Amino acid sequence: MSDSSPLPAPQWLAPGKKVLALSGGVGGAKLALGLSRLLAPDQLSIVCNTGDDFDHLGLRICPDLDTVMYTLAGRNNVEQGWGLAGETWRVLDALGQLGGDTWFRLGDVDIGTHLARSEWLRRGESLSAVTRRLSLALGVSHPLLPMSDDPVSTIVHSDQGALSFQHYFVREQCRPAVRGFEFNGIGQARPQAEFLSLLQGGDLAAIVICPSNPFVSVDPILNVPGVRAALRAARAPVIAVSPIVGGIAIKGPTAKMMAELNMPSSAAAVAAHYGDLLDGFIVDETDAGEAERIAASGVSVRVAQTVMKSLDDRIMLAAEALRFAAAF
Amino acid sequence: MSDSSPLPAPQWLAPGKKVLALSGGVGGAKLALGLSRLLAPDQLSIVCNTGDDFDHLGLRICPDLDTVMYTLAGRNNVEQGWGLAGETWRVLDALGQLGGDTWFRLGDVDIGTHLARSEWLRRGESLSAVTRRLSLALGVSHPLLPMSDDPVSTIVHSDQGALSFQHYFVREQCRPAVRGFEFNGIGQARPQAEFLSLLQGGDLAAIVICPSNPFVSVDPILNVPGVRAALRAARAPVIAVSPIVGGIAIKGPTAKMMAELNMPSSAAAVAAHYGDLLDGFIVDETDAGEAERIAASGVSVRVAQTVMKSLDDRIMLAAEALRFAAAF
Repeated sequence: MSDSSPLPAPQWLAPGKKVLALSGGVGGAKLALGLSRLLAPDQLSIVCNTGDDFDHLGLRICPDLDTVMYTLAGRNNVEQGWGLAGETWRVLDALGQLGGDTWFRLGDVDIGTHLARSEWLRRGESLSAVTRRLSLALGVSHPLLPMSDDPVSTIVHSDQGALSFQHYFVREQCRPAVRGFEFNGIGQARPQAEFLSLLQGGDLAAIVICPSNPFVSVDPILNVPGVRAALRAARAPVIAVSPIVGGIAIKGPTAKMMAELNMPSSAAAVAAHYGDLLDGFIVDETDAGEAERIAASGVSVRVAQTVMKSLDDRIMLAAEALRFAAAF
Repeated sequence: MSDSSPLPAPQWLAPGKKVLALSGGVGGAKLALGLSRLLAPDQLSIVCNTGDDFDHLGLRICPDLDTVMYTLAGRNNVEQGWGLAGETWRVLDALGQLGGDTWFRLGDVDIGTHLARSEWLRRGESLSAVTRRLSLALGVSHPLLPMSDDPVSTIVHSDQGALSFQHYFVREQCRPAVRGFEFNGIGQARPQAEFLSLLQGGDLAAIVICPSNPFVSVDPILNVPGVRAALRAARAPVIAVSPIVGGIAIKGPTAKMMAELNMPSSAAAVAAHYGDLLDGFIVDETDAGEAERIAASGVSVRVAQTVMKSLDDRIMLAAEALRFAAAF
């Protein structure tokens, strides 16, 4: 994490100003990493979807928080696209030999994270407090915030019935055709305290919706009671980066879901999905042709190179988002 | 497990007859292994102490059952004296780096066992059923029975207050001076069904109390309501092998406990502790001088080589115990 120091803060934000990023897993983590290279820990907070969280083998697993945490710690497996670099599979191999469930691929080091988190949660710590401890231990100094400390579980309604998210996503490998989504527990969930306080305070310079799945990564965050209204009320511009590029998703089932939901798999459809929540929308150069149509709905559009292959790509897109936000 | 086939059954037991072994962890597992080489799976059942069982990091851990299971599977770490051969420590290293508890040394493969057991128990299976599944998966065909399917927890009363057994044994490394023991939950515990049925049936040719700690390994088994009376009522002779040799324990804190409880650390004191439950007692050659005194209390005594360094030692002591039992 030392090959690229953050640039001096004033270049990106006015003194005392902050950026709030809303993220799911892999795609969101890439942009969050880029932002973390430009902004100091007191200038950037990253709110993660927790609708994917689930209990498995007695472990509390928070895939999006962990993906962002591992990515910011420089521990993520870049080639594989998920999990930890240098991970081993001794526990799962042993479990498999005993006839246990191995469909959710838990690496040994990752299991260490889940054991620690589960134990601390059992002792009564909040998910926020646990996430802070894990982050600090891994050297992640930017605040990672769960969208809520209350449990929310995403249910995928599909042609194979209602599936819990990880059953849909990992066990069934996104094969079922989706019909809709439900976020169990969301009615009782309160926005995480720092998240709400940032939304309601006057310090935000930008709210960045990372290029994550709109339906199962971003919508759970937006649907926590009070969040949508607070986003609308916030003076900072809300900028989203399209997760759809040239009609396909860089990662994950976004495009497939859009088709199954009878929506065009396009950046414009993502913008339409977020609707009047957005002040600005960043589309990829591939989709420059959609810019005018999206702008017609009253959203400012910026065209950028959004496919983040290298660390530089991540930082450049983060810079683009910050410049875009500064223009409002 | 194929280097020494069981000898033909008739040499050791009359047709239809069975042996019941009562065991704690390491010392008991050695004799249980010896017995398993002489007796077929339908001739030997091994009942294990579950008073050491505990919940740690959300895992249900059954140290004695696992030690016997790993030993019978040929997977135990002989040099180390506990745990699995070829074990790795990736999870615990990761957990330690996150600031989690690492005082209880859980290896990666061992964690696989605990995850499987904990999950199956959560789904409502009995500890007996779970132990059967684990045993079968590891190729252990002799029945391993928990003393009870109901939870019992051994508490060590010490000069440092009441300690749960693993806190005394592992975390505090047996340093506190013991004052007494308590088996929480034992009043409500029922003997495991096959265990009770063996005790009450007419098929037993011998009941062998393995050379395990009398206070924290064997006493919990004996104190399950109904067990002591059933042992006394059983027609089969009850034979114990002394865990004390020349005043010291081959493994574990037995001798230290006896001193702290103001008992002599001797084979004779172990025999006296078991009292009229015993029909026969096997002492080591080192302790041949105590034989007469023990016999004076009405217990038959046999002197044998009881220190089990090699597999042959284990088998020879098992044979000695079977011959001794056959003489009643």
